[in-house]
Amino acid sequence: MTRIGIFGWGNLGKAVADNLLNFPDMQLKVIFSRRPQVVAAQAPKGIAVASVSDMEKWTDKIDVLLLCSGSATDLPEQTPAAVKLFNVVDSFDTHANIPTHFAAVDKAAKESSHLGLISAGWDPGLFSLSRALFNAFLPNGVDYTFWGKGVSQGHSDAIRRVAGVKRGVQYTVPRDTAIERVRSGEQPALSTREKHLRECFVVAENGADCAKIEAEIKNMPNYFSDYDTVVHFISEEEFEHDHKQMPHGGFVLRSGNNTEEYKSLLELNIKLDSNPHFTSGVLLAYARAVKRLFDNGARGCITVFDVPPSALFVGTPDDMRKHLL
Amino acid sequence: MTRIGIFGWGNLGKAVADNLLNFPDMQLKVIFSRRPQVVAAQAPKGIAVASVSDMEKWTDKIDVLLLCSGSATDLPEQTPAAVKLFNVVDSFDTHANIPTHFAAVDKAAKESSHLGLISAGWDPGLFSLSRALFNAFLPNGVDYTFWGKGVSQGHSDAIRRVAGVKRGVQYTVPRDTAIERVRSGEQPALSTREKHLRECFVVAENGADCAKIEAEIKNMPNYFSDYDTVVHFISEEEFEHDHKQMPHGGFVLRSGNNTEEYKSLLELNIKLDSNPHFTSGVLLAYARAVKRLFDNGARGCITVFDVPPSALFVGTPDDMRKHLL
Repeated sequence: MTRIGIFGWGNLGKAVADNLLNFPDMQLKVIFSRRPQVVAAQAPKGIAVASVSDMEKWTDKIDVLLLCSGSATDLPEQTPAAVKLFNVVDSFDTHANIPTHFAAVDKAAKESSHLGLISAGWDPGLFSLSRALFNAFLPNGVDYTFWGKGVSQGHSDAIRRVAGVKRGVQYTVPRDTAIERVRSGEQPALSTREKHLRECFVVAENGADCAKIEAEIKNMPNYFSDYDTVVHFISEEEFEHDHKQMPHGGFVLRSGNNTEEYKSLLELNIKLDSNPHFTSGVLLAYARAVKRLFDNGARGCITVFDVPPSALFVGTPDDMRKHLL
Repeated sequence: MTRIGIFGWGNLGKAVADNLLNFPDMQLKVIFSRRPQVVAAQAPKGIAVASVSDMEKWTDKIDVLLLCSGSATDLPEQTPAAVKLFNVVDSFDTHANIPTHFAAVDKAAKESSHLGLISAGWDPGLFSLSRALFNAFLPNGVDYTFWGKGVSQGHSDAIRRVAGVKRGVQYTVPRDTAIERVRSGEQPALSTREKHLRECFVVAENGADCAKIEAEIKNMPNYFSDYDTVVHFISEEEFEHDHKQMPHGGFVLRSGNNTEEYKSLLELNIKLDSNPHFTSGVLLAYARAVKRLFDNGARGCITVFDVPPSALFVGTPDDMRKHLL
């Protein structure tokens, strides 16, 4: 049994708790929160809820702590701090800041003789693994990553900051025409606008100027101005009925040449009803691996690139060779 | 520089030599053959060609030997024998016999303190990795593997043994309807016949009875009788023009549930102009990994499941975290 702790009781932390049923060798022991009283009312039966300030008392009671907070401000602080006490897994997903985050976690983990795995999930995570394998096997080629159709939290937040918007959600939509061009073997250079469409569903405040809202969204720099954006105004009922889920997905493609004459096209694509629920499964599989690698002596910070697939799977190496190879 | 040897100068061995251009850290040193005089006339300039009986003289001149022979009778003998002298990579693909082959290679490799990686390629290989990752991340689900459209050597050989057949090739064709049912999230139970179609292109001998040939192919047990089979009779010119390549490809899908409510669908698909050329790239990436893992002390037999992705990629771990994670 691998004993698990969760830090953070948002969408991802709750999804980890839901998904544990599918990981029979893992057991949730404790949820750490900055609001333990609130969380205690929602936590699964029999699971301890503890304040973040009491984390030190749990060092010999869990094997791996899953950090389920946000990448913007929480994880850069929390992961290096937590790895001083526990082996940890996080889903840090600010791609540009991964080297800095890695260095901070590596230093803290080595000082305390723990193992920390950062940036697990699907991108970074499963998509990164696909990019790495595709690049290793087909070195002469071009990578393409498309995201969606799925909810982008950052863009949804941006919509909701526009005056007159009561509720709003933004879907990132990959363009079929762009994906088909890549699949044709063409190796096109694709602009931002050609790759993704942004589709917004907005509930306006009573009496708000919808034309003004639409223009403000479409012209918002960084978020929307480089894209073709569609804004739909809908009723609160429709929003409540159709836009409360967090589906996501995407595509990783590599189009390349083995020789001048012979091309290969490699594609991973995923379709998720619930982004946090799938992500939680990746985190749990890497928690299993972290326990195994730690028991074998690994220390410091690692990523998905450092983990052999055999460490992720519940069965034995014999099982894997027999049934999955 | 990783110094490479090739054993066997068939389609795969030649493809390895073609593909080395894309692996700047690897260098072909020698081709071993049972017909060294024949191979010497075809080998790339400056590459030694040696008789199999002289392999012992090369033990300190290459780092990894790639075994490029067939799985039916050659590799079960050759891989355990070769790993007594060298670190090796093979593409053993008789799935049912992998445990036996693994045990034989493991014993020989441990006795001689070498490292052998078996069953590299795309299935087993990239497809196995996808199955393992998909199972680890989404434990509650169903796996599907489809092959093609591509040439099956075994089925093509079977056609050519039918009386009156001058030339013949068989394409395994995955059925779109079956793949679409899986993609819909249905998790169907699919029969052999529902998953793949077998399409044959035959050049008949002058005066042969085509109806008889067609019936004999379609009713052939093991190879065709469990499938819907289409037989096309074509001219030798058309055969020569359209059917001399070895394209292949396929699909690995896993359809599963994170919770009762939330499903995920994971799919890898690949499309290869030349099966041996893509396979050769996988072998070369694993040869790189075998060298690195051997240098770190690994001995015995391993498979793709035992290799961290970081060992496969040409760049440093820093590069990978920066550009691929």
